[in-house]
Amino acid sequence: MSSTAGQVIKCRAAVAWEAGKPLVIEEVEVAPPQANEVRIKILFNALCHSDLYYWEAKGFTPLFPRILGHEAGGMVESVGEGVTELKPGDHVLPCFTGECGDCRHCKSEESNLCETLRFNTDRGVMLNDGKTRFTKNGQPIYHFLGTSTFSEYTVVHVGCLAKINPAAPLDKVCVLSCGVSTGMGATLNVAKPEKGQSVAVFGLGAVGLAACEGARMAGAGRIIGVDLNPGRFSVAKIFGVTEFVNPKDHDKPVQEVIAEMTDGGVDRAVECTGSFHAMIQAFECVHDGWGVAVLVGVPSNDDAFKTHPLNFLNERTLKGTAFGNYKPRTDLPTQVEKYMNKELELDKFITHSVAFSEINKAFDYMQKGQSIRCIIRMDA
Amino acid sequence: MSSTAGQVIKCRAAVAWEAGKPLVIEEVEVAPPQANEVRIKILFNALCHSDLYYWEAKGFTPLFPRILGHEAGGMVESVGEGVTELKPGDHVLPCFTGECGDCRHCKSEESNLCETLRFNTDRGVMLNDGKTRFTKNGQPIYHFLGTSTFSEYTVVHVGCLAKINPAAPLDKVCVLSCGVSTGMGATLNVAKPEKGQSVAVFGLGAVGLAACEGARMAGAGRIIGVDLNPGRFSVAKIFGVTEFVNPKDHDKPVQEVIAEMTDGGVDRAVECTGSFHAMIQAFECVHDGWGVAVLVGVPSNDDAFKTHPLNFLNERTLKGTAFGNYKPRTDLPTQVEKYMNKELELDKFITHSVAFSEINKAFDYMQKGQSIRCIIRMDA
Repeated sequence: MSSTAGQVIKCRAAVAWEAGKPLVIEEVEVAPPQANEVRIKILFNALCHSDLYYWEAKGFTPLFPRILGHEAGGMVESVGEGVTELKPGDHVLPCFTGECGDCRHCKSEESNLCETLRFNTDRGVMLNDGKTRFTKNGQPIYHFLGTSTFSEYTVVHVGCLAKINPAAPLDKVCVLSCGVSTGMGATLNVAKPEKGQSVAVFGLGAVGLAACEGARMAGAGRIIGVDLNPGRFSVAKIFGVTEFVNPKDHDKPVQEVIAEMTDGGVDRAVECTGSFHAMIQAFECVHDGWGVAVLVGVPSNDDAFKTHPLNFLNERTLKGTAFGNYKPRTDLPTQVEKYMNKELELDKFITHSVAFSEINKAFDYMQKGQSIRCIIRMDA
Repeated sequence: MSSTAGQVIKCRAAVAWEAGKPLVIEEVEVAPPQANEVRIKILFNALCHSDLYYWEAKGFTPLFPRILGHEAGGMVESVGEGVTELKPGDHVLPCFTGECGDCRHCKSEESNLCETLRFNTDRGVMLNDGKTRFTKNGQPIYHFLGTSTFSEYTVVHVGCLAKINPAAPLDKVCVLSCGVSTGMGATLNVAKPEKGQSVAVFGLGAVGLAACEGARMAGAGRIIGVDLNPGRFSVAKIFGVTEFVNPKDHDKPVQEVIAEMTDGGVDRAVECTGSFHAMIQAFECVHDGWGVAVLVGVPSNDDAFKTHPLNFLNERTLKGTAFGNYKPRTDLPTQVEKYMNKELELDKFITHSVAFSEINKAFDYMQKGQSIRCIIRMDA
């Protein structure tokens, strides 16, 4: 039992007081975990695009003050009533979407959209009592995605925590708790290319590069990276991309360009931008008869996906995925082992590192498109 | 060798001279089969909706005079050069889409869209020489779907002929050569419901009823039939439908009605109407996490399939199929055996029977929605 168990912990947290305004490092109070909750000491964060989106709060319901952060690694400080799976000192990856283990989704081999702990970007409180565990001088500070890892301590539902090998370096494997798993799983678990097949990946940010890494791991014969920014292409080679297409370089629709490059279409496509145009392109560029396209990117407005039904009738498949179809508690420990066994490369995703006190720099790097993943060291 | 081999055969055919005008039984000349072609004596036809559509020629390129017909059973009369798989006397089902056996599609386990012999509704001639094998007093009469079975004799590419068990009754198994296989395969080969799962079928015509039959064969727990015509419901029960939904009976969208009936959505949906609204409804009524919707119905205009991408991101899958993903030469003989073993029920699809001389009656029955399948007896 740690000496802080059952006590309110005062610690540093990066608070988003207003949409788009720099985060402010504040001393906050973190209440003890309640039933089925775990309080963890966060050691490393990585900044993910979703943190940026919800900080900007464009097109979303703004909810402030809020502690963002959901891609992280930490250590259990104390556990609430009924928690038997974890004990103080265990190394964990918090996850924005959970796994209760009991619902129809958790029992389905296909779904990871847990009925109880499914990600909810609008909720700023804990499920147990509908309240926050964070306060500053008595003022509640909202949670984000049930994780709020931009704090030295945070409280998370036990169903949103994957217990991992304590030998794994948390400053590396923390990137598995969102973006990298999302992209990699989209390819490996959903698109499922066969060895030697061609895969097109739309959007070469961290998630797209992870989708490429998944294609590389699956033994894809050709990996075609599609991005409007030619600066992404040199980086993408490190992730196994063999050919590049910049839609701006062509007068015809990119789906036609890709069809010509691949004798009728790619075998698999993975869409990681969230743009409606790219979604349609990704679907329409797969080969008829067997092509599968997978949507990963989250759209930022209410436009519709549109295509002619004949594109389906010609035996193309369109699927979507959240978190690469990984069940966080079941699958993340295995992914960590794959990293430890060198089957999975994570270091190349990490391009920057900043002290927690300089967390706004991580936002800068991402906004300028300079970083793939920027690690935020919580001890500095 | 039959006495007619190598000779032009004069026989009766039902010629469509103009769009929408009654077919006329004429004496036509049928040329001998060329390389890779087979001339067959048609014994039974069944009328399929596609015959009706191309006869009406609404929204399609009209091509007349033409001999329609593609759901049929017959016997080989003679074979052209290079044909080794079939010999005179063999019983065959002609198929509107072929299987060359050599292309990427034929070699793929997933596709049945043969590169060479894929269905082509616009082509009215044989592939070998770009000409017709039918004439009337020297005037060419166009083919339809490479089959043109509304003739006592017709010429078909060997890749579009499935050799079947000669003990199988052709007046029954002929319905496997299009509609029944299309619907049944959509469920069994593409939607693939697991035992006990729920399946919604949109449109309870012959193809939709065959999709229900596929669901019944797969051991579906609930089969929900959706149709605007309540008259279809009593018939559908014979095909395993357990519940009926008439969208006209509800004020809310049918996808919501079905979601409420099924605790969030059906496991599988199969769309057999070709209506854009039904396509969207079928997709949106499947359960998130694992639901799969399959499009079968061919749209008659150029509107688009539209849905919000979140419906995909919540882990729903949308696929389409042609001919139920059956490879005609490989799979139809097996389907015939299933009928012979009583695993598959075909007799209940056959509601009417007419003599060839009264073929226009079969069109009447279908237009009035009275028939599921009407057999056309070629010897009468």
